[in-house]
Amino acid sequence: MTGRRTRVSITDVARQAGVSVGTASKALNGRGQLREETRARVRAAAHELGFLPSAVAASLLTGRTYTVGLIMTDHHGRFSLPILHGAEDALGWDETLAFVCDTRDDPIREQHYVRGLLRRRVDGIIVAGRRTEPRPPLAADLPVPVVYAFARSADPGDCSVVVDEPAGAALAVEHLLRTGRRHIAHVTGPHGHASVRARVDGTRRALADAGRELVGDPWYGGWSEVWGRFAAAALARAHPDVDAVFCGSDAIARGVADGLRECGRRLPDDVAIVGVDNWQPTAEGCRPPLTSVDLNLREVGRTAGTLLLSAIRSGPAPGVHSVPCRLVVRASSAPTGG
Amino acid sequence: MTGRRTRVSITDVARQAGVSVGTASKALNGRGQLREETRARVRAAAHELGFLPSAVAASLLTGRTYTVGLIMTDHHGRFSLPILHGAEDALGWDETLAFVCDTRDDPIREQHYVRGLLRRRVDGIIVAGRRTEPRPPLAADLPVPVVYAFARSADPGDCSVVVDEPAGAALAVEHLLRTGRRHIAHVTGPHGHASVRARVDGTRRALADAGRELVGDPWYGGWSEVWGRFAAAALARAHPDVDAVFCGSDAIARGVADGLRECGRRLPDDVAIVGVDNWQPTAEGCRPPLTSVDLNLREVGRTAGTLLLSAIRSGPAPGVHSVPCRLVVRASSAPTGG
Repeated sequence: MTGRRTRVSITDVARQAGVSVGTASKALNGRGQLREETRARVRAAAHELGFLPSAVAASLLTGRTYTVGLIMTDHHGRFSLPILHGAEDALGWDETLAFVCDTRDDPIREQHYVRGLLRRRVDGIIVAGRRTEPRPPLAADLPVPVVYAFARSADPGDCSVVVDEPAGAALAVEHLLRTGRRHIAHVTGPHGHASVRARVDGTRRALADAGRELVGDPWYGGWSEVWGRFAAAALARAHPDVDAVFCGSDAIARGVADGLRECGRRLPDDVAIVGVDNWQPTAEGCRPPLTSVDLNLREVGRTAGTLLLSAIRSGPAPGVHSVPCRLVVRASSAPTGG
Repeated sequence: MTGRRTRVSITDVARQAGVSVGTASKALNGRGQLREETRARVRAAAHELGFLPSAVAASLLTGRTYTVGLIMTDHHGRFSLPILHGAEDALGWDETLAFVCDTRDDPIREQHYVRGLLRRRVDGIIVAGRRTEPRPPLAADLPVPVVYAFARSADPGDCSVVVDEPAGAALAVEHLLRTGRRHIAHVTGPHGHASVRARVDGTRRALADAGRELVGDPWYGGWSEVWGRFAAAALARAHPDVDAVFCGSDAIARGVADGLRECGRRLPDDVAIVGVDNWQPTAEGCRPPLTSVDLNLREVGRTAGTLLLSAIRSGPAPGVHSVPCRLVVRASSAPTGG
């Protein structure tokens, strides 16, 4: 930070161009009646001096600040960073920047940030959830549009972007059936989570559509590898004929893979494994590398950003907008030989 | 978004309080000569109507916008989110919000974001790196202070906050020696990375201070579990007496743990393992759960935020500020029994 430079002001530009400050301002904002030669001279002076028009001042004219808030809660960055990237993709077209606020699941922090964002006159707010349970709206009667991403708002009049989780589970099941698996079990997270129930529903429906059903009941537990290892041992005893396990997360899938291998199962020859999240370090570290349902969170963020810009420009699009998942195939679900 | 409310303006407050707009403004900004009774009446009206003073307008008075930029590059969120959390801790005291911009390692995006931030008149910028290689300064002669976090600026006149990586490696080695290990190997990432070299240096120095040396040369490879598994098998053959492995990352450590177990080593009885990053899902999924050097990235973010605020208020603090690591002990480095 040697030689911190003074900002170039509109006064400097006016002096350089030999016009008044008012004329310089009109020239740069494209307003008022000016000769084209004058406008060109002012623009040249601004360019030469490296003048950056102030967005703060411009916002007083346009009524927009070209800023939005992104409120999130995420300890590991798995969910919110891809949503941020997608939102940036959409907002970038509009030269809009995002204030990012992490509430750490604390409603008091959330309200604090909402006030801070409104004081800064953001044009709108994206609220990115970490779980898919519907969440209470940010506040009643906010003066700017809000889009909920990943976790929908409990108010159906709000605008929410969600992942189509049942269809994501169906992708996994259809892939397993197509590659020759017949006895599919499901090991997943806590029964109380909306994501868990949505994935169980999608799994059951896809199997029913193929005239089949799940081997045993779903195995509900935690989101951890430890739970996956434990469940695998119990599953191998209870249902020795299982030839595929669809797991509610990549971490669970890694535990199931390790647990089954230690029960003497060859992967993927004897049993295929599919996870959910497509969290690259986990999926690629798995043995064998893990086929996984990608929740397309970046697309969720992109859709939320696009819907927010359109709400800012021309009013809200209430309702729930659904983004499809995609399946990323790796070695853990290779077709059975023969 | 039913019933989107019109913003309450200063005009509404003035009307409600029965004063002029100028008087209302003076009352709320604490400026000018006013009777205390008038000031109180205006404040009550503002409170009643839910009036939020505009930060945009306020910034024209104070010369500060109470916003900063946080420029980062991070695919997995491992590095930048804890830095963001720490920066929020520091900035929160000042009611300052952060624009977060992800450059995706693209210098053109970086320059685009820098211009966008300057146009919005941010008070300062934090640049969070993903690797510890010194990086080129953002630009010469920026009109606002900049603090570099995790990756230092190549210009020693800039203000940078880094992790003391050699001391972090020493923490791991001292812990292993203290718990009875004598033959310590080091499996790590690519030789070209500054982090790798810093950790090798710290490891060697801590061993030398105890009158010992590394078993063999460091094993340089990738950052992945796959590399860790491969290295473990080779290490077990080359140095069968190894009783501890300090690994350059948690992912490598997981691979080493799995690889050694498959060579018949009992963990931690025969061999202790320590990683770096303390990335919770990886460390806790490891068998046994992994002792790890935590890089204290949140503290890096907090220090960067504090230094930035102080630079904004009273000028820059050039130089490199170093944050210590801490060791998080789990079962993978339990003392040898007996």
